[in-house]
Amino acid sequence: MLNIGLLGCGRIGQVHARSIGQIEAARVAAVSDAFAEPAQALATKTGAKVMDSDALINSVDVEAVVIGTPTDTHYDLIHAAARAGKAIFCEKPVDMSANRIRDCIKAVDAAGVPFMTAFNRRFDPNFANIRYRIEQGEIGDVEIVTIMSRDPSPPPVSYIESSGGLFRDMMIHDLDMARFILGEEPISVYAVGAALVDPAIGAAGDVDTAAVTLATASGKICQISNSRRATYGYDQRLEVHGSAGMLRAENMLETTVEAANASGFRKAPAQYFFLERYEAAYRNEMAHFVDAVVGGNPVSPNITDGLRAQILADAATKSLASGRPVEID
Amino acid sequence: MLNIGLLGCGRIGQVHARSIGQIEAARVAAVSDAFAEPAQALATKTGAKVMDSDALINSVDVEAVVIGTPTDTHYDLIHAAARAGKAIFCEKPVDMSANRIRDCIKAVDAAGVPFMTAFNRRFDPNFANIRYRIEQGEIGDVEIVTIMSRDPSPPPVSYIESSGGLFRDMMIHDLDMARFILGEEPISVYAVGAALVDPAIGAAGDVDTAAVTLATASGKICQISNSRRATYGYDQRLEVHGSAGMLRAENMLETTVEAANASGFRKAPAQYFFLERYEAAYRNEMAHFVDAVVGGNPVSPNITDGLRAQILADAATKSLASGRPVEID
Amino acid sequence: MLNIGLLGCGRIGQVHARSIGQIEAARVAAVSDAFAEPAQALATKTGAKVMDSDALINSVDVEAVVIGTPTDTHYDLIHAAARAGKAIFCEKPVDMSANRIRDCIKAVDAAGVPFMTAFNRRFDPNFANIRYRIEQGEIGDVEIVTIMSRDPSPPPVSYIESSGGLFRDMMIHDLDMARFILGEEPISVYAVGAALVDPAIGAAGDVDTAAVTLATASGKICQISNSRRATYGYDQRLEVHGSAGMLRAENMLETTVEAANASGFRKAPAQYFFLERYEAAYRNEMAHFVDAVVGGNPVSPNITDGLRAQILADAATKSLASGRPVEID
Amino acid sequence: MLNIGLLGCGRIGQVHARSIGQIEAARVAAVSDAFAEPAQALATKTGAKVMDSDALINSVDVEAVVIGTPTDTHYDLIHAAARAGKAIFCEKPVDMSANRIRDCIKAVDAAGVPFMTAFNRRFDPNFANIRYRIEQGEIGDVEIVTIMSRDPSPPPVSYIESSGGLFRDMMIHDLDMARFILGEEPISVYAVGAALVDPAIGAAGDVDTAAVTLATASGKICQISNSRRATYGYDQRLEVHGSAGMLRAENMLETTVEAANASGFRKAPAQYFFLERYEAAYRNEMAHFVDAVVGGNPVSPNITDGLRAQILADAATKSLASGRPVEID
Repeated sequence: MLNIGLLGCGRIGQVHARSIGQIEAARVAAVSDAFAEPAQALATKTGAKVMDSDALINSVDVEAVVIGTPTDTHYDLIHAAARAGKAIFCEKPVDMSANRIRDCIKAVDAAGVPFMTAFNRRFDPNFANIRYRIEQGEIGDVEIVTIMSRDPSPPPVSYIESSGGLFRDMMIHDLDMARFILGEEPISVYAVGAALVDPAIGAAGDVDTAAVTLATASGKICQISNSRRATYGYDQRLEVHGSAGMLRAENMLETTVEAANASGFRKAPAQYFFLERYEAAYRNEMAHFVDAVVGGNPVSPNITDGLRAQILADAATKSLASGRPVEID
Repeated sequence: MLNIGLLGCGRIGQVHARSIGQIEAARVAAVSDAFAEPAQALATKTGAKVMDSDALINSVDVEAVVIGTPTDTHYDLIHAAARAGKAIFCEKPVDMSANRIRDCIKAVDAAGVPFMTAFNRRFDPNFANIRYRIEQGEIGDVEIVTIMSRDPSPPPVSYIESSGGLFRDMMIHDLDMARFILGEEPISVYAVGAALVDPAIGAAGDVDTAAVTLATASGKICQISNSRRATYGYDQRLEVHGSAGMLRAENMLETTVEAANASGFRKAPAQYFFLERYEAAYRNEMAHFVDAVVGGNPVSPNITDGLRAQILADAATKSLASGRPVEID
Repeated sequence: MLNIGLLGCGRIGQVHARSIGQIEAARVAAVSDAFAEPAQALATKTGAKVMDSDALINSVDVEAVVIGTPTDTHYDLIHAAARAGKAIFCEKPVDMSANRIRDCIKAVDAAGVPFMTAFNRRFDPNFANIRYRIEQGEIGDVEIVTIMSRDPSPPPVSYIESSGGLFRDMMIHDLDMARFILGEEPISVYAVGAALVDPAIGAAGDVDTAAVTLATASGKICQISNSRRATYGYDQRLEVHGSAGMLRAENMLETTVEAANASGFRKAPAQYFFLERYEAAYRNEMAHFVDAVVGGNPVSPNITDGLRAQILADAATKSLASGRPVEID
Repeated sequence: MLNIGLLGCGRIGQVHARSIGQIEAARVAAVSDAFAEPAQALATKTGAKVMDSDALINSVDVEAVVIGTPTDTHYDLIHAAARAGKAIFCEKPVDMSANRIRDCIKAVDAAGVPFMTAFNRRFDPNFANIRYRIEQGEIGDVEIVTIMSRDPSPPPVSYIESSGGLFRDMMIHDLDMARFILGEEPISVYAVGAALVDPAIGAAGDVDTAAVTLATASGKICQISNSRRATYGYDQRLEVHGSAGMLRAENMLETTVEAANASGFRKAPAQYFFLERYEAAYRNEMAHFVDAVVGGNPVSPNITDGLRAQILADAATKSLASGRPVEID
């Protein structure tokens, strides 16, 4: 039984608590939050103790921490948890600065603790199935990866302003997916983009519609497109063209019902809310973390994966500004 | 080059003329119709001679006849063409009376001429593909056949009155398909039905909505459903459940375009018009007839297939009237 | 908070315990089982007390009972729970005998307790969506209902022998679904069937492949087909053809991934295991029960629905034996 | 009746002859080819006269010419036909050199003759349907266009060597489609690519796998990907994401049949051969040409469209060589 301490009891913390509740080999032992109420509510539901974050990180009753606090607190919590020798599960992004992530890597490496970056989409049953089948050789060599990722509706402009921009806030998931599927590091990043959904997003210095092209040393290509709006739900698709075939994950729809009349054959919209769409992914990523930590096996994606995705997001941001492709070392 | 004489230059005759135009090994040599205009129009287009039906049937320039005239004329034309030693391609139904079809069989057998009953749906690329794959053993033994056949809209009641009723006019195609796919003769027929689409159809003594269950001696089952109306186009589906798998043919849609918005993902309606839906089937059935006659091979479906389907339609009609299943010898 | 006593801690009891665990307004207060171990395991997990069934039914700490014990125990448990004034949630079939169900109805009516028959498929999000949209008038009047229900593989013959036969054990779900969707009681039942999957099932006096036709007084038709084997997973489909359109629920597949190569475009098999396929349905039916009991609203499907489905299953059994349609009063 | 002279009786010339055969208002009046045999064969079939190209272009019996000869002959034939005052239908590319196309434009403008560039894909019923619905406003403003175009197998390297390279030979269709759908001229072109399918293609100085990003002044984006190989048939897809919805055209499959077994649900491969895949498009483009010429209406796409696509292909070629985006005036 892995005793987990939950740092942050907001929406994502509650998601992780529910996931832990469905895993035999783990339990929520302690919770912490800047606000008393959500911490107490989660404690009541799970039987966990409420602590402050320092006490939680250093508690002998806590073997692993789940960091679901605001991004700007990650750096200190990671260092503290590493010093305390706890296994770490950390929400993405690890930090907004690649250099600060490099600091965290040093701390984690020095402490020798497991560190998992929560790129939950890798654990979506559909995307994970594609990766597995590529590894099995089903489509031969990967040649062209296409990722389409469109939010149902844009966040408030106030969120946009502190988000780090579309590439670091939204496309970072797709950039990680690109690495996950390409199986080879991109060496160039080219971005285009515009504020087509909401001029206020443009006024805030960001784009809401963007496309990125990645290329690897061996010539593999990845095309990503993002929009902050999709009238038909949360659009999350992946397609991989290989030398021996093609694999693609279609959207998850609200139901399997199809209606027919004079206007044609109509299926349900895509699942709209990301917590519903990725419910299985959240459960599976936590199960992987618990399994790996309990079994003493490596966690994946790790903190270096968190860094590599951030570097790509930084490069895309720079490419958009310069109008030129950016090379990655 | 097979010289074909066309008896009947109405809508279906024109379809067959177009099909012949796309076949290398055949040409329309002569045409005949009760009305001068359609015969002349077809002659101009194809280079055929206009003749009366007697002359056409007995012309030395005609090796095969295509009978596309009204059903009540088939009997005499078949006898005349058989006597003249011509290969015969005849629209369904061969005749409204099973006994009169038996007379035709005698005439055709006595003359030793090829006779093809134009159950065009057997030549639809999708249904033919299913039959072929069953023969290849892809789904093991056939167990349950499901046929859904729904017209886009009902014919005029005047047509209904002389049609012989839904089972002989509409479901006969599905009854032939059932035989084609089951690979074994049905031994019982049970029908239910009602006039749900148009009370006038009920007043005319017919139904517009019906379902039939067929069973074979070895226990195979076929379920057919028919409606005279489908708001979403011409609904033509076939599904076969076998011991080792399932095969199904979905509708052919007007385009491959899918539209997405808040109401979901919408594809085009099914192709609406039977000549468009079965365009390939019409071409393929004529190609089969020409190939078989030119090559001296058996044609299929033959006149006995025409009789067997008529017997099943008669049995379904009787079952509906009696409320009991009807056994087939 | 509704305090629920669980009678039966086998597979289905555990499913219901998990469902209750996800519902805010209910908890498992007590559990009972003929065997000590499963009861204790469930008690440990949920915090419930272990009791014998009499004590549980009469406990003041129990407001509602969930009956998940073998079918032949239902009768006595229902009577005892009714006498004790508890709300009752009972697995299907209520009883193998329609007359004994009538006895139970008397007991339940006399006690005035809520009684829900657990036809879980009514709560499948896809089928429920179809019913809802029919009620909204989306497809006009229901005319033809098609239900395809095929198990991935047959149960052991030993199970078949005490199952009551395919119509009472398997098709009863589809017969209830037919009533749910038709919105009108069937007045005739016609069945065909054979043992095509396993001769041992035939030797045990049952069939493993069957089709039923239902007709209502107004002429609506329902066609059901069942097989005890489907190589492609748990095949559960529903289609409704109405005067203004069509609605159909397709299978739920294991993933949304499609693979393409020279053999074509391939999607995942249907979800194989009924607990996975109907996971949401189990959760939703329990939520409905809790909501209705807590809110003092009628439960649905109720015990009369359990009886009506049993009557249809009996009629189908009789029709198969006689070769004739059976009328329903 | 429009009298058409066919310049070139090879594969594409035969396609156009078949299309003309299905159009009421046109006929093949004359044919010409460098080789006697194909010209004679087509003449026999259509009733046309065989002429040399000069005679054909200047024949009073010819009102319009269809140019289906090798690309390097287009320039002279266009000039000759323009001088002779004939309406011109010309296969793509008009010429390999943008400057030489500019010369042709001058000749055509001076003569005032209609000139249609045969970008047949604009007339595919699926793509045309998407364009039509965009014009109707169904998806609001176009924001992201995604074009996937993959040949079933690469051409011989000897063909590659004289093809002008992937962007001019293959992607030019997609670049024209991008213009057709974006409704606004691209202002930048960025290309990546590699020889992943066949190293011999790389040795010949070309790529076989490529991706291009186009951006317009208002911020619209188009992503194109090409491969010279697709194991699953001729992959031809288009997707358009707009402010109010999404439209996409899926592949046309060989049949509508779906097979199910333990490996899942499998549909047919995509139609493999471009003449089959675009059969309707070829017919429709010729019908448009005939209608426009007979009716005195503008043809579309015209010669300027041929030039614009060539300029984009040149820019993509240059971008690949330089590793930088190329701006378009």
